[in-house]
Amino acid sequence: MVIDFKFYMRLALDEAWKYQGLTYPNPAVGCVIISEHNEILALEAHKYAGGPHAEVEALKSAYFKLTADNKILEINSSSQIHTYLLKNHNNCFKNATIFTTLEPCAHVGKTPSCAALISMLKIKRVVVGFDDLNIEASGGAEIISQAGVELKRDILAKECGELTLPFNMWKKDRFVFFKWAQRLNGTTDNGVISSEKSRRVVHAMRDVCDLLVIGGNTVRVDRPTLDARLSGGRAPDILILSKSKVFDQNIPLFSVKDRKVTISDNFSILDNYKNIMIEGADEMFRLTKGIVDYYLCFLSPNIGGSSSFRAIDEKLEILNIQKDEQDIIMWMKQANNRGNS
Amino acid sequence: MVIDFKFYMRLALDEAWKYQGLTYPNPAVGCVIISEHNEILALEAHKYAGGPHAEVEALKSAYFKLTADNKILEINSSSQIHTYLLKNHNNCFKNATIFTTLEPCAHVGKTPSCAALISMLKIKRVVVGFDDLNIEASGGAEIISQAGVELKRDILAKECGELTLPFNMWKKDRFVFFKWAQRLNGTTDNGVISSEKSRRVVHAMRDVCDLLVIGGNTVRVDRPTLDARLSGGRAPDILILSKSKVFDQNIPLFSVKDRKVTISDNFSILDNYKNIMIEGADEMFRLTKGIVDYYLCFLSPNIGGSSSFRAIDEKLEILNIQKDEQDIIMWMKQANNRGNS
Repeated sequence: MVIDFKFYMRLALDEAWKYQGLTYPNPAVGCVIISEHNEILALEAHKYAGGPHAEVEALKSAYFKLTADNKILEINSSSQIHTYLLKNHNNCFKNATIFTTLEPCAHVGKTPSCAALISMLKIKRVVVGFDDLNIEASGGAEIISQAGVELKRDILAKECGELTLPFNMWKKDRFVFFKWAQRLNGTTDNGVISSEKSRRVVHAMRDVCDLLVIGGNTVRVDRPTLDARLSGGRAPDILILSKSKVFDQNIPLFSVKDRKVTISDNFSILDNYKNIMIEGADEMFRLTKGIVDYYLCFLSPNIGGSSSFRAIDEKLEILNIQKDEQDIIMWMKQANNRGNS
Repeated sequence: MVIDFKFYMRLALDEAWKYQGLTYPNPAVGCVIISEHNEILALEAHKYAGGPHAEVEALKSAYFKLTADNKILEINSSSQIHTYLLKNHNNCFKNATIFTTLEPCAHVGKTPSCAALISMLKIKRVVVGFDDLNIEASGGAEIISQAGVELKRDILAKECGELTLPFNMWKKDRFVFFKWAQRLNGTTDNGVISSEKSRRVVHAMRDVCDLLVIGGNTVRVDRPTLDARLSGGRAPDILILSKSKVFDQNIPLFSVKDRKVTISDNFSILDNYKNIMIEGADEMFRLTKGIVDYYLCFLSPNIGGSSSFRAIDEKLEILNIQKDEQDIIMWMKQANNRGNS
């Protein structure tokens, strides 16, 4: 294995994908910092909107590793980390290199600009995977360059672009992902499939989705709630895809507060939403093929059940795989297609 | 992410699993070397029996990184790497730490002892995942300790033990793994499923298997060759599991040279073999459940086909997942069962 810039960027990519689907409206971003002697000082990711950016998380970890100043470990707000680092860095980063899957942001949003922070900390070198295409946050590379920081771009740009695609879709239009859970033998029926951990992750994703699409038959048979109770989050609006508008109003999903439920035989209301999760199995897969950007499969390593995806011929391409406590979490896209963009 | 001994050991583990099934009769082993400043100098694995051990591959890479002496890059034989390192190391490893998933070997086999090499190179510290249980090669830790090298054991011992289980089974008795290829929706029928790359890996595994078990129906329907032509290797002996002994002798597998084909309705001949691969689908899965140590699934991210594993209720546990060019390679075992040992 060659230990080079791509190696470190691959670590950053893998860490970032753990939080894909959870960072809306922010991009999933991963970050590695190495010392002047190439020690990995930090490997971090952006975990949720409002939380510190990946670079800030990594600078915090690296600062502690370099200085052993454990006061920083008690600080969790991004702006306070910024302030603390600027006050106390004492040039400890002067020979460090920071790898980030996405160009550090240039705009002051919920947190101050990462590009400005990196420049002021006098980091030696910034290695960027993918340029920020978003007008309000781009320009970070220029800020960094103008501050005299060494800049290298486009390391694993294709992979870092795939990681960032949901963000670019939100900015442009909307991002749609199709999520399903299955056993190893492909079955999607017969009760609970995923681990408790995977189900908590799905609930956390629902919390940041603004619309969840579900089939009418599933609603009638499973009588779901479709909220985010396992993660303590808010419930998304629902589109029930159904020709008939008649549903038993005692089905729990209709009683969830602050939620709009639409019953429709088409996808026109998707235009009103940005971050859209479709849950379903083979029929929904077929119906939504033209509007789905990414696929997300929670694969449980069990064999059982009886009903699986049928009568579809589809080639997918794996973007990232992760193992959680029990399941495999697979992000995919249609083969030979950069999402639906 | 905490960057600690477990982090480096996890890198070594992941690298080693890439060669699981290919190293017989040697164990799959991974190795990381870090410098005095914690730079990752090498991340390597043992790739095939007769090739350098993981430690030797890693010492070679680390030596080059430390000295820039590119003469070592031309040396591929293990004993020549040993000789070259002993002559030229000039104490360059004096502050290095070597992480190895398995206790470095103490015996002189196809290559000199790794424990002796490590001791003579005056490495500062050795971190071992799992103790070598094999009498003829164990004792490496003692050699290292007695040479004054700092020794730390049992880092990710459970995971390193799972990696090493096939080796310990060969030593004790035999190792049996069940291999199949399927699409994402669980189907195993309807033509070629895996990528060219995955099929080459399977052929390389057949090359080091001494017995391949296959069902009679599969032989009759698919008329396979079951050799290792894609990897240029030798073909294993075959057990056709079948009640009827009548087969068309023109089926290609019967014409492969230097191969013994047994047709039997039971598994008694397994006692004559050490490294056994079973290929099949759901029927064979059911029949072999009591004799299988590990499961190996090549999962293609496509949807199609019509026939998948049925009427089995089985909980598996994932040992390792890797992505190759296209497919996911999953090693698993029965849940709550340390292999079949």
